[in-house]
Amino acid sequence: MNIILVTPDDFIGEQTVRFDDQRAKHIKDVHQAEPGRRLKVGLMNGLMGMGEVIEAEDSGVVLELLLDRHPPQKLPLTVVLALPRPKMLRRIIQSLSSLGVRELVLINSYRVEKSYWQSPFLNQLDDYVRLGLEQCVDTVPMQITLEKRFKPFVEDRLEALSENSLKLVAHPYVDRVCPRNVEQATTLVIGPEGGFIDYEVDKLAAVGFEPVSLGDRIQKVETVLPQLIGRLF
Amino acid sequence: MNIILVTPDDFIGEQTVRFDDQRAKHIKDVHQAEPGRRLKVGLMNGLMGMGEVIEAEDSGVVLELLLDRHPPQKLPLTVVLALPRPKMLRRIIQSLSSLGVRELVLINSYRVEKSYWQSPFLNQLDDYVRLGLEQCVDTVPMQITLEKRFKPFVEDRLEALSENSLKLVAHPYVDRVCPRNVEQATTLVIGPEGGFIDYEVDKLAAVGFEPVSLGDRIQKVETVLPQLIGRLF
Repeated sequence: MNIILVTPDDFIGEQTVRFDDQRAKHIKDVHQAEPGRRLKVGLMNGLMGMGEVIEAEDSGVVLELLLDRHPPQKLPLTVVLALPRPKMLRRIIQSLSSLGVRELVLINSYRVEKSYWQSPFLNQLDDYVRLGLEQCVDTVPMQITLEKRFKPFVEDRLEALSENSLKLVAHPYVDRVCPRNVEQATTLVIGPEGGFIDYEVDKLAAVGFEPVSLGDRIQKVETVLPQLIGRLF
Repeated sequence: MNIILVTPDDFIGEQTVRFDDQRAKHIKDVHQAEPGRRLKVGLMNGLMGMGEVIEAEDSGVVLELLLDRHPPQKLPLTVVLALPRPKMLRRIIQSLSSLGVRELVLINSYRVEKSYWQSPFLNQLDDYVRLGLEQCVDTVPMQITLEKRFKPFVEDRLEALSENSLKLVAHPYVDRVCPRNVEQATTLVIGPEGGFIDYEVDKLAAVGFEPVSLGDRIQKVETVLPQLIGRLF
Protein backbone atom coordinates (compact mmCIF):
# COMPACT_ATOMS: atom_id res chain seq x y z
CA MET A 1 0.00 0.00 0.00
CA ASN A 2 1.68 3.17 -1.19
CA ILE A 3 -1.52 5.08 -0.40
CA ILE A 4 -4.31 4.47 2.12
CA LEU A 5 -7.65 4.71 0.29
CA VAL A 6 -10.68 5.87 2.24
CA THR A 7 -14.38 5.99 1.32
CA PRO A 8 -17.23 8.21 2.51
CA ASP A 9 -18.21 5.45 4.97
CA ASP A 10 -14.97 5.91 6.88
CA PHE A 11 -15.63 9.54 7.86
CA ILE A 12 -16.46 10.32 11.49
CA GLY A 13 -15.88 14.07 11.11
CA GLU A 14 -15.43 16.55 8.32
CA GLN A 15 -11.74 15.70 7.84
CA THR A 16 -11.50 12.68 10.13
CA VAL A 17 -11.69 9.00 9.20
CA ARG A 18 -11.67 5.87 11.32
CA PHE A 19 -11.34 2.21 10.24
CA ASP A 20 -10.39 -1.11 11.82
CA ASP A 21 -9.88 -3.38 8.79
CA GLN A 22 -6.84 -4.42 6.70
CA ARG A 23 -5.82 -0.80 6.33
CA ALA A 24 -5.55 -0.41 10.11
CA LYS A 25 -3.48 -3.58 10.30
CA HIS A 26 -1.22 -2.29 7.52
CA ILE A 27 -0.74 1.08 9.22
CA LYS A 28 0.14 -0.58 12.52
CA ASP A 29 2.19 -3.55 11.27
CA VAL A 30 3.94 -2.25 8.17
CA HIS A 31 4.18 1.49 8.86
CA GLN A 32 4.35 0.91 12.65
CA ALA A 33 2.71 4.29 12.82
CA GLU A 34 2.42 6.26 16.07
CA PRO A 35 0.21 9.33 16.54
CA GLY A 36 1.69 12.29 14.68
CA ARG A 37 2.97 10.20 11.76
CA ARG A 38 1.81 11.40 8.34
CA LEU A 39 0.79 8.93 5.62
CA LYS A 40 -0.33 9.25 2.00
CA VAL A 41 -4.12 9.08 1.86
CA GLY A 42 -6.65 9.37 -0.95
CA LEU A 43 -10.43 9.48 -1.13
CA MET A 44 -11.77 6.90 -3.60
CA ASN A 45 -12.79 8.84 -6.73
CA GLY A 46 -11.53 12.01 -5.09
CA LEU A 47 -8.51 14.02 -3.99
CA MET A 48 -5.27 12.70 -2.52
CA GLY A 49 -3.02 14.12 0.18
CA MET A 50 -1.84 13.32 3.68
CA GLY A 51 -3.42 11.82 6.77
CA GLU A 52 -2.00 12.45 10.22
CA VAL A 53 -2.34 9.53 12.61
CA ILE A 54 -4.46 10.61 15.60
CA GLU A 55 -4.96 7.15 17.07
CA ALA A 56 -3.42 3.77 16.16
CA GLU A 57 -4.92 1.23 18.55
CA ASP A 58 -5.97 -2.40 18.20
CA SER A 59 -9.55 -1.16 18.16
CA GLY A 60 -8.89 1.01 15.08
CA VAL A 61 -6.97 3.80 13.42
CA VAL A 62 -8.07 7.44 13.26
CA LEU A 63 -6.58 9.84 10.71
CA GLU A 64 -6.99 13.59 10.26
CA LEU A 65 -6.93 14.29 6.53
CA LEU A 66 -5.55 17.06 4.36
CA LEU A 67 -6.51 16.17 0.79
CA ASP A 68 -5.35 18.81 -1.67
CA ARG A 69 -4.03 17.11 -4.82
CA HIS A 70 -5.68 15.64 -7.88
CA PRO A 71 -4.98 12.01 -8.72
CA PRO A 72 -2.73 11.31 -11.74
CA GLN A 73 -4.27 11.39 -15.22
CA LYS A 74 -5.49 8.10 -16.58
CA LEU A 75 -4.09 6.81 -19.87
CA PRO A 76 -6.56 7.43 -22.72
CA LEU A 77 -6.73 3.68 -23.14
CA THR A 78 -9.47 1.08 -23.21
CA VAL A 79 -8.18 -2.50 -23.05
CA VAL A 80 -10.47 -5.19 -24.48
CA LEU A 81 -9.08 -8.47 -23.17
CA ALA A 82 -10.13 -12.08 -23.70
CA LEU A 83 -10.96 -13.33 -20.20
CA PRO A 84 -7.72 -14.73 -18.76
CA ARG A 85 -7.32 -17.94 -16.75
CA PRO A 86 -8.82 -17.17 -13.30
CA LYS A 87 -5.55 -17.59 -11.39
CA MET A 88 -4.01 -14.86 -13.61
CA LEU A 89 -6.88 -12.41 -13.13
CA ARG A 90 -5.71 -10.82 -9.91
CA ARG A 91 -2.24 -10.04 -11.20
CA ILE A 92 -3.42 -8.81 -14.59
CA ILE A 93 -6.20 -6.56 -13.27
CA GLN A 94 -3.94 -5.17 -10.56
CA SER A 95 -1.26 -4.42 -13.13
CA LEU A 96 -3.66 -2.71 -15.59
CA SER A 97 -5.10 -0.69 -12.72
CA SER A 98 -1.66 0.44 -11.56
CA LEU A 99 -0.62 1.33 -15.11
CA GLY A 100 -3.50 3.82 -15.25
CA VAL A 101 -5.74 2.12 -17.83
CA ARG A 102 -9.06 3.99 -17.98
CA GLU A 103 -11.35 1.14 -18.92
CA LEU A 104 -11.20 -2.64 -19.26
CA VAL A 105 -13.66 -4.88 -21.11
CA LEU A 106 -13.29 -8.62 -20.46
CA ILE A 107 -14.68 -10.53 -23.43
CA ASN A 108 -15.33 -14.07 -24.48
CA SER A 109 -13.39 -15.67 -27.32
CA TYR A 110 -13.23 -19.10 -28.92
CA ARG A 111 -10.17 -20.10 -26.90
CA VAL A 112 -11.51 -18.86 -23.54
CA GLU A 113 -12.63 -21.89 -21.53
CA LYS A 114 -16.33 -21.59 -20.62
CA SER A 115 -15.55 -22.45 -16.99
CA TYR A 116 -13.57 -19.22 -16.60
CA TRP A 117 -16.83 -17.28 -16.61
CA GLN A 118 -17.94 -19.19 -13.49
CA SER A 119 -14.85 -18.29 -11.48
CA PRO A 120 -15.48 -16.74 -8.05
CA PHE A 121 -12.51 -14.48 -8.77
CA LEU A 122 -14.83 -12.52 -11.08
CA ASN A 123 -16.59 -11.30 -7.92
CA GLN A 124 -13.37 -9.78 -6.65
CA LEU A 125 -12.45 -7.53 -9.57
CA ASP A 126 -13.05 -4.36 -7.52
CA ASP A 127 -10.56 -5.60 -4.94
CA TYR A 128 -7.93 -6.21 -7.62
CA VAL A 129 -8.49 -2.73 -9.06
CA ARG A 130 -8.10 -1.28 -5.60
CA LEU A 131 -4.81 -3.15 -5.08
CA GLY A 132 -3.57 -1.51 -8.26
CA LEU A 133 -4.58 1.95 -7.03
CA GLU A 134 -2.86 1.34 -3.69
CA GLN A 135 0.26 0.31 -5.59
CA CYS A 136 0.45 3.21 -8.04
CA VAL A 137 -0.98 5.96 -5.80
CA ASP A 138 -4.25 6.84 -7.51
CA THR A 139 -7.86 7.17 -6.36
CA VAL A 140 -9.91 6.65 -9.53
CA PRO A 141 -10.80 3.02 -10.28
CA MET A 142 -10.46 1.54 -13.76
CA GLN A 143 -13.95 0.73 -15.06
CA ILE A 144 -14.55 -2.95 -15.87
CA THR A 145 -17.29 -4.45 -18.06
CA LEU A 146 -17.87 -8.16 -18.74
CA GLU A 147 -19.00 -9.22 -22.22
CA LYS A 148 -19.79 -12.91 -22.30
CA ARG A 149 -20.68 -13.11 -25.99
CA PHE A 150 -18.07 -12.17 -28.57
CA LYS A 151 -20.21 -11.58 -31.66
CA PRO A 152 -22.92 -9.28 -30.25
CA PHE A 153 -20.25 -7.30 -28.40
CA VAL A 154 -18.09 -6.78 -31.49
CA GLU A 155 -21.02 -6.18 -33.87
CA ASP A 156 -23.24 -4.04 -31.67
CA ARG A 157 -21.16 -2.31 -29.02
CA LEU A 158 -17.45 -2.22 -29.85
CA GLU A 159 -17.85 0.37 -32.58
CA ALA A 160 -19.46 2.90 -30.24
CA LEU A 161 -17.04 2.04 -27.45
CA SER A 162 -14.02 2.70 -29.66
CA GLU A 163 -15.36 5.72 -31.54
CA ASN A 164 -12.70 8.32 -32.37
CA SER A 165 -9.95 6.13 -30.98
CA LEU A 166 -7.00 4.34 -32.57
CA LYS A 167 -8.15 0.73 -32.98
CA LEU A 168 -5.54 -1.98 -32.55
CA VAL A 169 -5.64 -5.71 -32.02
CA ALA A 170 -2.43 -7.30 -30.75
CA HIS A 171 -1.87 -10.36 -32.89
CA PRO A 172 1.33 -12.33 -33.38
CA TYR A 173 2.22 -13.42 -36.92
CA VAL A 174 1.34 -10.15 -38.64
CA ASP A 175 3.92 -7.91 -40.25
CA ARG A 176 2.68 -4.52 -39.16
CA VAL A 177 4.48 -3.57 -35.97
CA CYS A 178 2.63 -1.88 -33.14
CA PRO A 179 2.91 1.92 -33.34
CA ARG A 180 4.74 3.93 -30.66
CA ASN A 181 3.88 6.95 -28.58
CA VAL A 182 0.48 7.35 -30.21
CA GLU A 183 -0.65 10.42 -28.25
CA GLN A 184 -4.32 9.72 -28.87
CA ALA A 185 -7.19 7.76 -27.38
CA THR A 186 -6.66 4.08 -28.12
CA THR A 187 -8.69 0.89 -27.91
CA LEU A 188 -6.41 -2.14 -27.67
CA VAL A 189 -7.80 -5.65 -28.11
CA ILE A 190 -5.79 -8.61 -26.76
CA GLY A 191 -6.60 -12.25 -27.35
CA PRO A 192 -6.43 -15.27 -25.07
CA GLU A 193 -3.47 -17.63 -24.67
CA GLY A 194 -3.19 -19.22 -28.11
CA GLY A 195 -4.58 -16.07 -29.76
CA PHE A 196 -7.81 -15.16 -31.52
CA ILE A 197 -9.04 -17.44 -34.28
CA ASP A 198 -9.18 -16.03 -37.82
CA TYR A 199 -12.94 -15.52 -37.63
CA GLU A 200 -12.48 -13.27 -34.60
CA VAL A 201 -9.66 -11.26 -36.17
CA ASP A 202 -11.85 -10.78 -39.26
CA LYS A 203 -14.79 -9.65 -37.13
CA LEU A 204 -12.57 -7.13 -35.37
CA ALA A 205 -11.14 -5.94 -38.69
CA ALA A 206 -14.69 -5.38 -39.96
CA VAL A 207 -15.19 -2.71 -37.28
CA GLY A 208 -11.83 -1.10 -37.98
CA PHE A 209 -9.34 -2.91 -35.74
CA GLU A 210 -5.92 -3.32 -37.28
CA PRO A 211 -3.78 -6.32 -36.28
CA VAL A 212 -0.33 -5.29 -35.02
CA SER A 213 2.52 -7.30 -33.56
CA LEU A 214 5.55 -6.82 -31.32
CA GLY A 215 7.73 -9.20 -33.29
CA ASP A 216 8.39 -12.91 -33.26
CA ARG A 217 8.48 -13.56 -29.54
CA ILE A 218 5.33 -14.95 -27.95
CA GLN A 219 4.68 -13.39 -24.55
CA LYS A 220 2.36 -14.19 -21.71
CA VAL A 221 -0.59 -11.81 -21.43
CA GLU A 222 0.73 -10.49 -18.12
CA THR A 223 4.02 -9.54 -19.82
CA VAL A 224 2.71 -8.24 -23.12
CA LEU A 225 0.19 -5.85 -21.56
CA PRO A 226 2.74 -3.60 -19.80
CA GLN A 227 5.06 -3.99 -22.80
CA LEU A 228 2.36 -2.71 -25.19
CA ILE A 229 1.37 0.08 -22.82
CA GLY A 230 5.00 1.16 -22.42
CA ARG A 231 5.26 1.34 -26.19
CA LEU A 232 1.96 3.09 -26.92
CA PHE A 233 2.14 5.84 -24.25
CA MET B 1 5.90 -24.72 -23.97
CA ASN B 2 5.74 -23.07 -27.36
CA ILE B 3 8.99 -24.79 -28.31
CA ILE B 4 10.59 -28.05 -27.12
CA LEU B 5 14.23 -27.33 -26.20
CA VAL B 6 16.76 -30.12 -26.58
CA THR B 7 20.41 -30.37 -25.53
CA PRO B 8 23.34 -32.39 -26.90
CA ASP B 9 22.66 -35.02 -24.20
CA ASP B 10 19.30 -35.85 -25.79
CA PHE B 11 20.76 -37.00 -29.12
CA ILE B 12 20.69 -40.71 -29.95
CA GLY B 13 21.45 -40.19 -33.64
CA GLU B 14 22.62 -37.38 -35.89
CA GLN B 15 19.13 -35.82 -36.14
CA THR B 16 17.31 -37.91 -33.54
CA VAL B 17 16.62 -37.06 -29.90
CA ARG B 18 15.03 -39.06 -27.12
CA PHE B 19 13.91 -37.93 -23.65
CA ASP B 20 11.56 -39.12 -20.92
CA ASP B 21 11.25 -36.08 -18.63
CA GLN B 22 8.80 -33.17 -18.36
CA ARG B 23 9.08 -32.51 -22.07
CA ALA B 24 7.89 -36.04 -22.86
CA LYS B 25 4.97 -35.57 -20.48
CA HIS B 26 4.13 -32.24 -22.13
CA ILE B 27 4.23 -33.73 -25.63
CA LYS B 28 1.97 -36.59 -24.61
CA ASP B 29 -0.44 -34.76 -22.27
CA VAL B 30 -0.73 -31.28 -23.75
CA HIS B 31 0.01 -31.89 -27.43
CA GLN B 32 -1.42 -35.45 -27.28
CA ALA B 33 1.06 -36.12 -30.03
CA GLU B 34 1.00 -39.31 -32.11
CA PRO B 35 3.82 -40.45 -34.42
CA GLY B 36 3.93 -38.23 -37.50
CA ARG B 37 2.98 -35.05 -35.63
CA ARG B 38 5.40 -32.15 -36.10
CA LEU B 39 6.34 -29.86 -33.22
CA LYS B 40 8.50 -26.75 -32.86
CA VAL B 41 11.92 -27.77 -31.56
CA GLY B 42 15.13 -25.88 -30.82
CA LEU B 43 18.64 -26.85 -29.80
CA MET B 44 19.76 -24.89 -26.72
CA ASN B 45 22.20 -22.22 -27.97
CA GLY B 46 21.57 -23.41 -31.52
CA LEU B 47 19.13 -23.55 -34.41
CA MET B 48 15.35 -23.95 -34.27
CA GLY B 49 12.98 -25.84 -36.52
CA MET B 50 10.65 -28.82 -36.43
CA GLY B 51 10.72 -32.24 -34.82
CA GLU B 52 8.61 -35.09 -36.14
CA VAL B 53 7.32 -37.47 -33.49
CA ILE B 54 8.72 -40.98 -34.15
CA GLU B 55 7.67 -42.52 -30.85
CA ALA B 56 5.50 -41.17 -28.02
CA GLU B 57 5.37 -43.88 -25.37
CA ASP B 58 5.29 -43.84 -21.58
CA SER B 59 8.93 -44.90 -21.69
CA GLY B 60 9.90 -41.78 -23.67
CA VAL B 61 9.51 -39.63 -26.74
CA VAL B 62 11.67 -39.83 -29.87
CA LEU B 63 11.81 -36.95 -32.35
CA GLU B 64 13.48 -36.66 -35.76
CA LEU B 65 14.73 -33.09 -36.10
CA LEU B 66 14.97 -30.61 -38.95
CA LEU B 67 16.61 -27.49 -37.50
CA ASP B 68 17.08 -24.79 -40.12
CA ARG B 69 16.26 -21.40 -38.62
CA HIS B 70 18.20 -18.99 -36.45
CA PRO B 71 16.67 -17.96 -33.12
CA PRO B 72 15.31 -14.39 -32.84
CA GLN B 73 17.75 -11.56 -32.13
CA LYS B 74 18.22 -10.62 -28.52
CA LEU B 75 17.51 -7.06 -27.41
CA PRO B 76 20.78 -5.11 -27.02
CA LEU B 77 19.89 -4.74 -23.36
CA THR B 78 21.60 -5.52 -20.07
CA VAL B 79 19.29 -5.25 -17.06
CA VAL B 80 20.94 -4.58 -13.70
CA LEU B 81 18.30 -5.40 -11.10
CA ALA B 82 18.29 -5.21 -7.31
CA LEU B 83 17.63 -8.78 -6.19
CA PRO B 84 13.84 -9.16 -5.94
CA ARG B 85 11.91 -10.94 -3.20
CA PRO B 86 12.50 -14.68 -3.80
CA LYS B 87 8.86 -15.50 -4.54
CA MET B 88 8.95 -12.93 -7.37
CA LEU B 89 12.15 -14.26 -8.92
CA ARG B 90 10.65 -16.97 -11.08
CA ARG B 91 8.12 -14.69 -12.72
CA ILE B 92 10.56 -11.82 -13.22
CA ILE B 93 13.38 -13.94 -14.67
CA GLN B 94 10.97 -15.84 -16.91
CA SER B 95 9.52 -12.58 -18.18
CA LEU B 96 12.95 -10.98 -18.87
CA SER B 97 14.03 -14.15 -20.63
CA SER B 98 10.94 -14.21 -22.83
CA LEU B 99 11.29 -10.51 -23.66
CA GLY B 100 14.72 -11.26 -25.16
CA VAL B 101 16.98 -9.49 -22.66
CA ARG B 102 20.59 -10.37 -23.43
CA GLU B 103 22.07 -10.18 -19.96
CA LEU B 104 20.87 -9.79 -16.38
CA VAL B 105 22.93 -8.77 -13.37
CA LEU B 106 21.27 -9.26 -9.97
CA ILE B 107 22.80 -6.85 -7.48
CA ASN B 108 22.60 -6.05 -3.84
CA SER B 109 21.18 -2.74 -2.62
CA TYR B 110 20.46 -1.17 0.76
CA ARG B 111 16.78 -2.15 0.61
CA VAL B 112 17.41 -5.75 -0.48
CA GLU B 113 16.91 -8.00 2.55
CA LYS B 114 20.06 -10.00 3.29
CA SER B 115 18.04 -13.22 3.55
CA TYR B 116 17.11 -12.98 -0.16
CA TRP B 117 20.68 -13.99 -1.03
CA GLN B 118 20.20 -17.29 0.83
CA SER B 119 17.08 -18.25 -1.13
CA PRO B 120 17.13 -21.73 -2.72
CA PHE B 121 15.33 -20.13 -5.68
CA LEU B 122 18.70 -18.66 -6.66
CA ASN B 123 19.77 -22.20 -7.58
CA GLN B 124 16.95 -22.42 -10.10
CA LEU B 125 17.66 -19.38 -12.23
CA ASP B 126 18.59 -21.50 -15.25
CA ASP B 127 15.20 -23.22 -15.06
CA TYR B 128 13.42 -19.86 -15.01
CA VAL B 129 15.41 -18.67 -18.02
CA ARG B 130 14.49 -21.84 -19.84
CA LEU B 131 10.79 -21.34 -19.07
CA GLY B 132 11.09 -17.92 -20.71
CA LEU B 133 12.73 -19.41 -23.82
CA GLU B 134 10.01 -22.07 -24.04
CA GLN B 135 7.40 -19.29 -23.81
CA CYS B 136 8.83 -16.92 -26.40
CA VAL B 137 10.35 -19.49 -28.82
CA ASP B 138 14.07 -18.87 -28.52
CA THR B 139 17.10 -21.07 -27.87
CA VAL B 140 19.73 -18.67 -26.48
CA PRO B 141 19.64 -18.22 -22.70
CA MET B 142 19.89 -14.81 -21.08
CA GLN B 143 23.17 -14.64 -19.16
CA ILE B 144 22.83 -14.04 -15.41
CA THR B 145 25.46 -12.79 -12.98
CA LEU B 146 25.06 -12.31 -9.22
CA GLU B 147 26.77 -9.35 -7.56
CA LYS B 148 26.37 -9.49 -3.80
CA ARG B 149 28.20 -6.25 -3.03
CA PHE B 150 26.88 -3.00 -4.45
CA LYS B 151 29.90 -0.73 -4.09
CA PRO B 152 32.64 -2.92 -5.63
CA PHE B 153 30.29 -3.85 -8.46
CA VAL B 154 29.42 -0.26 -9.31
CA GLU B 155 32.93 1.11 -8.79
CA ASP B 156 34.97 -1.68 -10.37
CA ARG B 157 32.84 -3.56 -12.89
CA LEU B 158 29.75 -1.63 -13.99
CA GLU B 159 31.71 0.84 -16.09
CA ALA B 160 33.27 -1.90 -18.24
CA LEU B 161 29.99 -3.80 -18.38
CA SER B 162 28.11 -0.76 -19.69
CA GLU B 163 30.80 0.59 -22.00
CA ASN B 164 29.43 2.20 -25.19
CA SER B 165 25.86 1.73 -24.04
CA LEU B 166 23.10 4.15 -23.04
CA LYS B 167 23.17 4.19 -19.23
CA LEU B 168 19.84 4.59 -17.46
CA VAL B 169 18.62 4.06 -13.93
CA ALA B 170 14.86 3.86 -13.49
CA HIS B 171 14.05 6.07 -10.53
CA PRO B 172 10.71 7.54 -9.56
CA TYR B 173 10.58 11.17 -8.47
CA VAL B 174 12.90 12.53 -11.16
CA ASP B 175 11.73 14.85 -13.90
CA ARG B 176 13.57 13.39 -16.87
CA VAL B 177 11.29 10.92 -18.59
CA CYS B 178 12.65 7.66 -19.90
CA PRO B 179 13.62 7.92 -23.60
CA ARG B 180 11.80 5.93 -26.29
CA ASN B 181 12.90 3.67 -29.10
CA VAL B 182 16.57 4.17 -28.32
CA GLU B 183 17.97 1.97 -31.09
CA GLN B 184 21.25 1.42 -29.28
CA ALA B 185 22.82 -0.87 -26.71
CA THR B 186 21.42 0.01 -23.30
CA THR B 187 22.21 -0.79 -19.69
CA LEU B 188 19.14 -0.31 -17.50
CA VAL B 189 19.45 -0.32 -13.72
CA ILE B 190 16.35 -0.96 -11.61
CA GLY B 191 16.12 -0.64 -7.84
CA PRO B 192 14.36 -2.75 -5.22
CA GLU B 193 10.84 -2.21 -3.90
CA GLY B 194 11.13 1.15 -2.16
CA GLY B 195 13.81 2.28 -4.60
CA PHE B 196 17.53 2.96 -4.35
CA ILE B 197 18.77 5.22 -1.57
CA ASP B 198 20.35 8.54 -2.56
CA TYR B 199 23.87 7.20 -1.96
CA GLU B 200 23.24 4.45 -4.50
CA VAL B 201 21.77 6.81 -7.10
CA ASP B 202 24.81 9.07 -6.62
CA LYS B 203 27.20 6.14 -7.03
CA LEU B 204 25.44 5.13 -10.25
CA ALA B 205 25.48 8.72 -11.50
CA ALA B 206 29.24 8.84 -10.86
CA VAL B 207 29.74 6.14 -13.50
CA GLY B 208 27.38 7.82 -15.97
CA PHE B 209 23.93 6.46 -15.18
CA GLU B 210 21.16 9.00 -15.65
CA PRO B 211 18.00 8.69 -13.52
CA VAL B 212 14.84 8.55 -15.62
CA SER B 213 11.21 8.05 -14.68
CA LEU B 214 7.96 6.85 -16.24
CA GLY B 215 5.83 9.40 -14.42
CA ASP B 216 4.10 9.58 -11.08
CA ARG B 217 2.74 6.07 -10.82
CA ILE B 218 4.70 3.59 -8.73
CA GLN B 219 4.74 0.15 -10.35
CA LYS B 220 5.77 -3.26 -9.17
CA VAL B 221 9.09 -4.43 -10.59
CA GLU B 222 7.32 -7.18 -12.53
CA THR B 223 5.14 -4.56 -14.25
CA VAL B 224 7.69 -1.81 -14.79
CA LEU B 225 10.25 -4.10 -16.47
CA PRO B 226 8.12 -4.99 -19.53
CA GLN B 227 6.78 -1.43 -19.57
CA LEU B 228 10.30 0.02 -19.76
CA ILE B 229 11.38 -2.55 -22.35
CA GLY B 230 8.30 -1.82 -24.48
CA ARG B 231 9.22 1.85 -24.39
CA LEU B 232 12.95 1.52 -25.01
CA PHE B 233 12.87 -0.97 -27.92
